[in-house]
Amino acid sequence: MEQLSPFDIVLFGGTGDLSLRKLLPALYRRHRAGQLPEDGRIIATARTPMSREAFLDRVHDSYRERLDADELNETEWRRFAERLAFVPVDATDSHSYAQLAEALAGRDGRCRVFYLAVAPGLFVDICRNLQANDLVTPRSRVVLEKPLGHDLASARAISEQIGAIFPEEAIYRIDHYLGKETVQNLIALRFGNTLFEPLWRREWVRDVQISVAEQVGVAGRAGFYDRTGALRDMVQNHLLQLLCIIAMEPPTSIEADAVRDEKLKVLRALTRLEGRSALQNTVRGQYRAGAIGGQPVPGYLDEDGVDEDSRTETFVAIKAEIANWRWSGVPFYLRTGKRLQERNAEIVVNFREVPHSIFDVTYGTGLPNKLVIQLQPDEGLRLHLMAKARGDQMRLRPAALDLDFAETFKQRQADAYERLLMDVLRGRLTLFMRRDELYAAWEWIEPILEAWNQAADAPKPYTAGTWGPAASSALLGREGASWHEEA
Amino acid sequence: MEQLSPFDIVLFGGTGDLSLRKLLPALYRRHRAGQLPEDGRIIATARTPMSREAFLDRVHDSYRERLDADELNETEWRRFAERLAFVPVDATDSHSYAQLAEALAGRDGRCRVFYLAVAPGLFVDICRNLQANDLVTPRSRVVLEKPLGHDLASARAISEQIGAIFPEEAIYRIDHYLGKETVQNLIALRFGNTLFEPLWRREWVRDVQISVAEQVGVAGRAGFYDRTGALRDMVQNHLLQLLCIIAMEPPTSIEADAVRDEKLKVLRALTRLEGRSALQNTVRGQYRAGAIGGQPVPGYLDEDGVDEDSRTETFVAIKAEIANWRWSGVPFYLRTGKRLQERNAEIVVNFREVPHSIFDVTYGTGLPNKLVIQLQPDEGLRLHLMAKARGDQMRLRPAALDLDFAETFKQRQADAYERLLMDVLRGRLTLFMRRDELYAAWEWIEPILEAWNQAADAPKPYTAGTWGPAASSALLGREGASWHEEA
Repeated sequence: MEQLSPFDIVLFGGTGDLSLRKLLPALYRRHRAGQLPEDGRIIATARTPMSREAFLDRVHDSYRERLDADELNETEWRRFAERLAFVPVDATDSHSYAQLAEALAGRDGRCRVFYLAVAPGLFVDICRNLQANDLVTPRSRVVLEKPLGHDLASARAISEQIGAIFPEEAIYRIDHYLGKETVQNLIALRFGNTLFEPLWRREWVRDVQISVAEQVGVAGRAGFYDRTGALRDMVQNHLLQLLCIIAMEPPTSIEADAVRDEKLKVLRALTRLEGRSALQNTVRGQYRAGAIGGQPVPGYLDEDGVDEDSRTETFVAIKAEIANWRWSGVPFYLRTGKRLQERNAEIVVNFREVPHSIFDVTYGTGLPNKLVIQLQPDEGLRLHLMAKARGDQMRLRPAALDLDFAETFKQRQADAYERLLMDVLRGRLTLFMRRDELYAAWEWIEPILEAWNQAADAPKPYTAGTWGPAASSALLGREGASWHEEA
Repeated sequence: MEQLSPFDIVLFGGTGDLSLRKLLPALYRRHRAGQLPEDGRIIATARTPMSREAFLDRVHDSYRERLDADELNETEWRRFAERLAFVPVDATDSHSYAQLAEALAGRDGRCRVFYLAVAPGLFVDICRNLQANDLVTPRSRVVLEKPLGHDLASARAISEQIGAIFPEEAIYRIDHYLGKETVQNLIALRFGNTLFEPLWRREWVRDVQISVAEQVGVAGRAGFYDRTGALRDMVQNHLLQLLCIIAMEPPTSIEADAVRDEKLKVLRALTRLEGRSALQNTVRGQYRAGAIGGQPVPGYLDEDGVDEDSRTETFVAIKAEIANWRWSGVPFYLRTGKRLQERNAEIVVNFREVPHSIFDVTYGTGLPNKLVIQLQPDEGLRLHLMAKARGDQMRLRPAALDLDFAETFKQRQADAYERLLMDVLRGRLTLFMRRDELYAAWEWIEPILEAWNQAADAPKPYTAGTWGPAASSALLGREGASWHEEA
């Protein structure tokens, strides 16, 4: 296995939810797997001072809550804890970086990662203060979590200001959906085999569905969400990134820019939805009171921190099209929402029906082939096809093939953050969004937002715990399609 | 389940090897599965008279040897035995059919099957005597086992003489390879799914290999074999039939003539191998003494009943090509032989390598995709492809997918004769060879035989227990290919 060089990871927001829930467990697991070099340190920072011991206790408590008993080996934990330090930093106050500077003193030659697990309003301040304190070395990298702006202008502003401090190749815009093993495997299957290439085009694909359904509401971040909405919060980043992975042409290599060039081409080839066409090809929804898992939940407008006449969408469905030779005429249906029936993220590639059927079908009729890429709650890749039913008649019945080979490869599946953190330490940008991708995504999103703003209508109401407004089904229904439902 | 109408099956060669080993067990199993109608009788005939009791004992003994203990339920056996009768018939003596006529008297309206499990030299005599005794009814069918002639002329002669008595749609030329569940499943996968169609053509297939390897020698039928050889014995029928199933265009229906029209088109599209091109694209072999499974075995020329200077081939490898838009330029490698290393029958569809590889391959390099259709010793359908190896690197490793869904469909797999006998009773000709197919196969085979006859060289020797002469590997090697070996 490739050896990582010595590093310092500086975690801004080091005691926050993302750090405790995802980043620190991911680092611990990579440590346990023997992947971290001896000299690899993690410096957590937060505004509120606390002792190293208090910090370690907090991390340890959080591990006990989250890790399996056999993962949390006490000896390993003690070894891992030696890597950990805590330094209080007030992100906006340049003077407060002195202690951090001290911690990093004499370590300029090492790989240095600033992970900004903080509100994006702080991104520029932190980068400027790091620079002011001379902490940005040639081997420094900065990791940014979404949202990367509220619109094209703000995304540009943030990118340009950070870009004045870090070169583009040191900026890691993270989208954890791309770190999922199944998304990786999809890339491997598409470009490691000849089998999929001839199928992967308008002649054989009827539609593609990308759906990220959440059961949660906006609790805890209603104020932010009400200014944002589902289109900005989910489609602009996650759903479009997944669309790029599905739709991109074979890149010339797996190197970052080769892949990102192809993704960029997809984003730029998206048919612009504006004015009437935006209204015709999108559905906005907003949840009303309902029930999730048998428990009553309030409607969006009754959530604390939401404007009582808010027109913010908590659900969006879009029929997107890609104007190129491979995909012309193939609908890419995108859907995401809060307070939906299930927590479920999946990509479904629906192949066309056989042009002419010669068999009796015992179960249903004319079931076409589909590839289902499940990202949440479990990961999996499944090919649905028809096989001969046993017996001396020539009858078909549906069968499914698991393509994620869980049985073949017994190794534990790494979680998305483990994978992406390792990529940052290795300097692999392939799975991170480049600045021009970010802009291109916003360029496609903005006209939709504009059309909505100018439209007279409000989002369509839907009952919490359902699959969104009926208009979402109608969007597909008018083309004879329907959202994928697991049988 | 579709109900069969009442029937009489008359088994010529009713005490012979095929009847005891395959046909009677197949009928018993269908009986046990509840598929035979109450009024469904089986009349075994043979030249040597014996009592019904003696015949039943013989069948019962043979079942005890061949069927599993839980299959051979004594109550069921007694019920099945009620269907069985024995009638002595001297096939060539018209007068000896009287007792058979008696047994069939008053049953003209029933489906009547004459199964000729006898030497083909008797086919015409039996049919004529059946006619002379007025036993051929409008609902009569005749089942013929290979060989159906020694060359085009004799195949024509037999067919025309039988054709004067039975209409073509009452003639069932059996090829038990086509009755195999896996071959059925291949048809289901090809034409029940869109997924395979775009792959199934010259652009994506590098070569197809059809290989039927036997470990047995010619013991017991050396005289016949020495006049026949591997090309006539195996290629003309089994291998070409399998080639047709792989290569045919999607038929317009699963009805017999639709499928057989497509198979015929393939046979007629085979590039003719004659003279020099026959010699360049075929390899003949003849086994020398060697060892099979650690036991020494004699060479072909030392077998009893074989001419000491025989030039009969016990092995043949052929590079065939199909001159049509789908397959032009794709080699179809055929191989069959006796005294080979393993008993193994399989079809391998080798897909082309990815045109440009972007991944590190951990195991071997550039392993292309292939579909392996195993017919013997076990049946199975397996797709070999590359998947992502677990871990945080983007590396590929080979993985295999079982496409025969043994797990999905728990039902017991019917044996080829069970399937084909049921098809005869149902009047389904789809899996049986039509007369024009038989002729077309001979038309392609004959010029090869002629070229061999005119050539000065003898078959290449190979040691028993190997994979045939080196020239067989060289035939593929000159195109950068090699025979499939299971990893």
